[in-house]
Amino acid sequence: MTINILFAALEARWPQYERPLTAALNAAGVTDFNLSTDIAPQEVDYIVLAPNGPVQDFSPYTRCKAVLNLWAGVEDVVSNPTLTQPLARMVDHGLTQGMVEWVTGHVLRHHLGMDTHIHGQDGVWRKVNPPLAQDRPVTILGLGALGTACAEALVALGFDVTGWSRSAKDVPGVRCLNGESGLRQALGTAQILVLLLPKTPETENLLNAQKLALMPEGAFIVNPGRGPLIDDQALLEALDSGHIAHATLDVFRVEPLPPEHPYWAHPSVTVTPHVASETREDTASEVIAENIRRSEAGEPLLHLVDRDLGY
Amino acid sequence: MTINILFAALEARWPQYERPLTAALNAAGVTDFNLSTDIAPQEVDYIVLAPNGPVQDFSPYTRCKAVLNLWAGVEDVVSNPTLTQPLARMVDHGLTQGMVEWVTGHVLRHHLGMDTHIHGQDGVWRKVNPPLAQDRPVTILGLGALGTACAEALVALGFDVTGWSRSAKDVPGVRCLNGESGLRQALGTAQILVLLLPKTPETENLLNAQKLALMPEGAFIVNPGRGPLIDDQALLEALDSGHIAHATLDVFRVEPLPPEHPYWAHPSVTVTPHVASETREDTASEVIAENIRRSEAGEPLLHLVDRDLGY
Repeated sequence: MTINILFAALEARWPQYERPLTAALNAAGVTDFNLSTDIAPQEVDYIVLAPNGPVQDFSPYTRCKAVLNLWAGVEDVVSNPTLTQPLARMVDHGLTQGMVEWVTGHVLRHHLGMDTHIHGQDGVWRKVNPPLAQDRPVTILGLGALGTACAEALVALGFDVTGWSRSAKDVPGVRCLNGESGLRQALGTAQILVLLLPKTPETENLLNAQKLALMPEGAFIVNPGRGPLIDDQALLEALDSGHIAHATLDVFRVEPLPPEHPYWAHPSVTVTPHVASETREDTASEVIAENIRRSEAGEPLLHLVDRDLGY
Repeated sequence: MTINILFAALEARWPQYERPLTAALNAAGVTDFNLSTDIAPQEVDYIVLAPNGPVQDFSPYTRCKAVLNLWAGVEDVVSNPTLTQPLARMVDHGLTQGMVEWVTGHVLRHHLGMDTHIHGQDGVWRKVNPPLAQDRPVTILGLGALGTACAEALVALGFDVTGWSRSAKDVPGVRCLNGESGLRQALGTAQILVLLLPKTPETENLLNAQKLALMPEGAFIVNPGRGPLIDDQALLEALDSGHIAHATLDVFRVEPLPPEHPYWAHPSVTVTPHVASETREDTASEVIAENIRRSEAGEPLLHLVDRDLGY
């Protein structure tokens, strides 16, 4: 029987995904399928979902076997009371790799003090040597697929890496901490702090004035995770006082970040336009296709979301 | 018999090196030594040398067994006709590690297009996604200790790395080329080019107008190697035309780079003040001490310079 797969994302995505998804489904051995942006809800077997797309009410999709998210973040879906179907997150090799490149690049940028030279092309020879990476403590909050991959890349480059997660984790070469006291310890040494936590009620405003005060004087913050992890007002105050030297922020409560937002004009903030983690069509399509193959074969889905934990 | 070790560098270096060198010599089991900045030439057994230091004429050092360079570059020493003693280069773990961090950081900076965001804090959401590192060809000219270490780090991050050296080399994961036609091929794909060749008569002005023309339109150049590897006038012209998008230069024919040099004012050049490779006192002292131990034990010196090759 034909498998009906609804592609439910913004219109602009369809031409990007139609070909790679078709190819990936064929490669996975899922041959008898109908992939379309227009299928009657009661006939849909799978929804390939972007949370900002046309499907917001899942109740008419009565025979849908799984919702396959195109994004790593599921906070906008998981709280949807009409969603009764299993939900899978996107864990895309391409997205993870892109995140590793962005995080490694910006950690090295702050570690090396690159901005001094990028801004200071005024004829003054400013010779300051940074310490080696082994003497630069970096803390990553969040040791999911993305946080772990970034931690591993920074360890490979020689950084002194601490990782923190809600529950205990073990990543080779990384000082893994958890719990409340672990968080205080992880922040206390963080000369460079990378935020890669999921957005849940517990992580909202996690980085507030109190937590910022725990960080070392002159620390750097890099946030490619989720905008609401940071109490924006508290961060602006910590930047104004110089307690935090610089923040590089890729995600925001409202995107695009409005032109009048104080982050844009602040000399100690670098705004990047949500480029750290971008789902890549080819590799993401492979993950979607593999999950449809698994579901049809009665095998468990990859990257299934725990609705209670919220990720 | 007491081993007389002359420390011959700029005065400011002595307080940085006295303690780590003493500690490293003791740790290496060289116990009966006199380490000083002031020893009569005919009594000196070893010279620890910075090429810009007080010893320029080696002829009075009649019983000196070896000259141990504090710097990776030996071009200012190797051509000195008064030098008849064996000369060892510095291959310092700390220096290599610092170079890997600097090169990886600036390659990622250009790869990710960071400057667009660092300069563009004007409220405009400039969403452009770079390719993944696997689709970014990077070429490293020079596969000595530094070039090889940088190539390995870039391969580990997923970059598509080509390496070129005078003689054939083999570095796992790196497309290794050599010879004239290999050089043309290595330049032809170099979206990001890293220069880590030694300065020899053959490499002077290696990157001239002809070679620059072989590079892809919009390529980036990163030079932490030696200033004279580049024909400065040809590079300025390639930057003016936009054929080369940007050059990040850490080394120059004259250092500090004079304030009036056109590199400072050029919008497509980032000058960094010779910070990419800095000898680190602790790790460099270990290399010096090990070579003195070896020499005293009749073992071959590490990192001995081939006077004919010039490195």
